Amino acid sequence: MTAGLTDSIKAGRDELQAQLLAVFDRSTKTAPASESVLNSLLGASSYACENGGKRIRPILAQAAASAVSIGDADKPAVHSTSIALELIHTYSLIHDDLPAMDDDDMRRGKPSLHRAYDEATAILVGDGLQARAFELLADAPDLTAEQKVRMIRVLAKASGMEGMVGGQYIDIQAVDSQMTLEELRAMHMLKTGALIRASLALGGIAANATEAQLAALDKYGCHIGLAFQVVDDILDVEGNTETLGKTQGKDAEANKPTYVKLLGLDGAKAEAQHLLQSALDALSGFGESADQLRELARYIVERDR
Amino acid sequence: MTAGLTDSIKAGRDELQAQLLAVFDRSTKTAPASESVLNSLLGASSYACENGGKRIRPILAQAAASAVSIGDADKPAVHSTSIALELIHTYSLIHDDLPAMDDDDMRRGKPSLHRAYDEATAILVGDGLQARAFELLADAPDLTAEQKVRMIRVLAKASGMEGMVGGQYIDIQAVDSQMTLEELRAMHMLKTGALIRASLALGGIAANATEAQLAALDKYGCHIGLAFQVVDDILDVEGNTETLGKTQGKDAEANKPTYVKLLGLDGAKAEAQHLLQSALDALSGFGESADQLRELARYIVERDR
Repeated sequence: MTAGLTDSIKAGRDELQAQLLAVFDRSTKTAPASESVLNSLLGASSYACENGGKRIRPILAQAAASAVSIGDADKPAVHSTSIALELIHTYSLIHDDLPAMDDDDMRRGKPSLHRAYDEATAILVGDGLQARAFELLADAPDLTAEQKVRMIRVLAKASGMEGMVGGQYIDIQAVDSQMTLEELRAMHMLKTGALIRASLALGGIAANATEAQLAALDKYGCHIGLAFQVVDDILDVEGNTETLGKTQGKDAEANKPTYVKLLGLDGAKAEAQHLLQSALDALSGFGESADQLRELARYIVERDR
Repeated sequence: MTAGLTDSIKAGRDELQAQLLAVFDRSTKTAPASESVLNSLLGASSYACENGGKRIRPILAQAAASAVSIGDADKPAVHSTSIALELIHTYSLIHDDLPAMDDDDMRRGKPSLHRAYDEATAILVGDGLQARAFELLADAPDLTAEQKVRMIRVLAKASGMEGMVGGQYIDIQAVDSQMTLEELRAMHMLKTGALIRASLALGGIAANATEAQLAALDKYGCHIGLAFQVVDDILDVEGNTETLGKTQGKDAEANKPTYVKLLGLDGAKAEAQHLLQSALDALSGFGESADQLRELARYIVERDR
């Protein structure tokens, strides 16, 4: 399931899981009756964050911090940053799964949030997770106010209308339409690429990366962001529903444009390998400190879910 | 329609309107086909922000800045702050109107966003407006990084699960249930009160308010936040659909708990007057600089929509 990931990355993921759930511990109290209702909202939030995710974005942020300066990846600031990224990603999945959007009943191997609870809860949990992500960055320990503001700017742009949200909108409008390869790339650069690039930027900012280092991380991020989607399209054809934790064949069935349709299965696989190589090339200025990033690039291309 | 508001407040509102729409000017370009799709997303966003709103929250922020230091309310920083507040409020209305939530076809006198466009667009526009609000604060001119971080923290908490989103969740769960007056107050302190208090805090922070001034503004905000909802409940009974711009009698019909049901119509009106007086008392430490805030408190209680 997680072939290609070292024990250190896996351990980091387990630790992240615990921190992620701690985000939903209540910080304030209200009237008794409201109290139990609010706890159920937080329970639904925990459900959405509980398990099954690959946690690629927080792991990328930590690996980027590590590439810039080994040791920095263990700082509490990097952890807050990582969790903020995962909250944004999780909220987007919750909203994407809604009946009015992709209408998916399964997510990460269990019923999607609106199936386990209801649509109103799914809408509100998504909204609340987005707010919590920005709150976490504002509250992050060990960061200067300048670092926080820069991170919030990057994350807000990447997740907003000219980033992830815009990409999802283009994706929904694209059902049953013809797209060129250039258009497909442009859509995925927004839908998936923007938040992956932001993950690397935030990790870099947390570790006080130079502008040149941030530029290299961003280039790496562009390539693995696209590779991630190419591989998703391949797995949609070749994977199986049980391993994927979501419905196999769904994108093809929904008549969405995919890399496999435009390039063929072999062409898509060659494209993934090409993007992997470009991602590795972007890291040439880093030494061994970027080995986790290199490993993650290979994992993204060679994963089976 | 706007009885009780001076020309200066009305002029500020018109200016805000222009700035609000400028938020949706594109800052980047993507592939040609995606370009037109993204523009339609921004068009839907403009539709949602276009007109009809009372703009209470941004006006409160400007009045709070003015109370602390006359002249500061005209600063670009206060304008960015004001727009961020209105974007959060607008996103919450868009999501609240969705069929899975309050299922309202009308908003601000025209079809709600999911009726004018579709549900997917309404979900995504809401998500995008939230991100844009935090982006605006991160980008605000004339503010220190410390001020921005503080504002983002306040806004994220106020709009999130233990604020506005939590209040909306309690509200939805409360249909057909009995609430005590204390529970009703607790719900509205989250649903409406949290963002109103945040508006005053953000205006105060933008004008470098002292802690004592922020505490007075917050006290004022608690009272007018509750008054706002009491009056909403009265208007739901006494107002008419055309003036309100939304469906009159909807809350009563939906079997939601309201102040009118718990206190009676006369009792609710007395409560509104009592809250108005408490709000005015909270401003006793301010001189004439707080006259706009005093006027706004009266407007909130005496409005007819």
